Amino acid sequence: MNTQDLLNQIAFIKEIDKVKYIQRKTKLFNSDRNENDAEHSWHLALMAIVLAEHSDAPIDILKVVKMVLIHDIVEIDSGDVFMYDTLKNHLNSDEERIAANRIFGLLPQKQAEEFIAVWEEFEAGETNEAKFAKSMDRLEPLLQNTSNNGGTWKEFDVKYEKVYEKKSVIKNGSATLWNYAEGLINESIEKGILKK
Amino acid sequence: MNTQDLLNQIAFIKEIDKVKYIQRKTKLFNSDRNENDAEHSWHLALMAIVLAEHSDAPIDILKVVKMVLIHDIVEIDSGDVFMYDTLKNHLNSDEERIAANRIFGLLPQKQAEEFIAVWEEFEAGETNEAKFAKSMDRLEPLLQNTSNNGGTWKEFDVKYEKVYEKKSVIKNGSATLWNYAEGLINESIEKGILKK
Repeated sequence: MNTQDLLNQIAFIKEIDKVKYIQRKTKLFNSDRNENDAEHSWHLALMAIVLAEHSDAPIDILKVVKMVLIHDIVEIDSGDVFMYDTLKNHLNSDEERIAANRIFGLLPQKQAEEFIAVWEEFEAGETNEAKFAKSMDRLEPLLQNTSNNGGTWKEFDVKYEKVYEKKSVIKNGSATLWNYAEGLINESIEKGILKK
Repeated sequence: MNTQDLLNQIAFIKEIDKVKYIQRKTKLFNSDRNENDAEHSWHLALMAIVLAEHSDAPIDILKVVKMVLIHDIVEIDSGDVFMYDTLKNHLNSDEERIAANRIFGLLPQKQAEEFIAVWEEFEAGETNEAKFAKSMDRLEPLLQNTSNNGGTWKEFDVKYEKVYEKKSVIKNGSATLWNYAEGLINESIEKGILKK
């Protein structure tokens, strides 16, 4: 064992504690308390494990879990970008890539490279695992907003078309979950908690 | 696909949101803000992935990750028991088993059985995966307390002997991590943040 490797791993473990302070716009279920990125990532990991059978394509579930556990770590440096932010693009930015290199770079080199690759794969959203991970990332706030009488849709005046467009990413991972999600969106229109 | 199964899975996903409200005694790193069970579980999952190479025995890392992600879910009903509580035994209680049956029982039957089995395996602490998962569970608060000038040791007047006894569980999972942990404990004595 290389002692320096362990010390580097411990440095990374300490650094990512900051993820617990990053507030998301979405609130917990039936709540007005904001969710933070660590809670969000924990929830997505369990959602992925519980819902894995609904993936349209075969997936390596450990890879999906790694993706969702680390996907927001870059926000330690770059901050949370709201899904419906019209000024800041939610696409993988240079700022996020610099953050990934700094934070995952705390790890021993081989491990750093692996984590950066997993994060890049998630961001690209092209593999089966990334598609399913992104389905989880879109499904959780949908469940939260419907439990919160419209939640961030109401708070930030986000309309049906935008929600439908963003949520349709779920379709790339799972027809079953998209069918369920589409039902929730339509129900939200009927209830008046989402506007056309 | 059985629609009822999906609805049961969604019910479980909503129920476990409550884990985010369960406050632990330990504080975040260099902080006076209490950690909650969801943040703690997220951190342990990433620690397990990052530190897996230090396990003395071969481990199924996905199993370990599942264990740490779900290990505190029973506390939705039974509440957090402080590691150094002298009245309440931290051993797997009837109360926790009833909670496991209720909460995991929200899932479709086969999945419920699997989750309960994983939780029981963690609690028993006998398999390689459970031993490593428990190492993570003891290591994180050690890192937190040493970053917090003694943290809960100081706050609740917990002495060296007790800390050493509880932390030695780390040894069952990893000689390397135990060696590191023992060093932290000794250093804490020298610094006066842990008393004999």
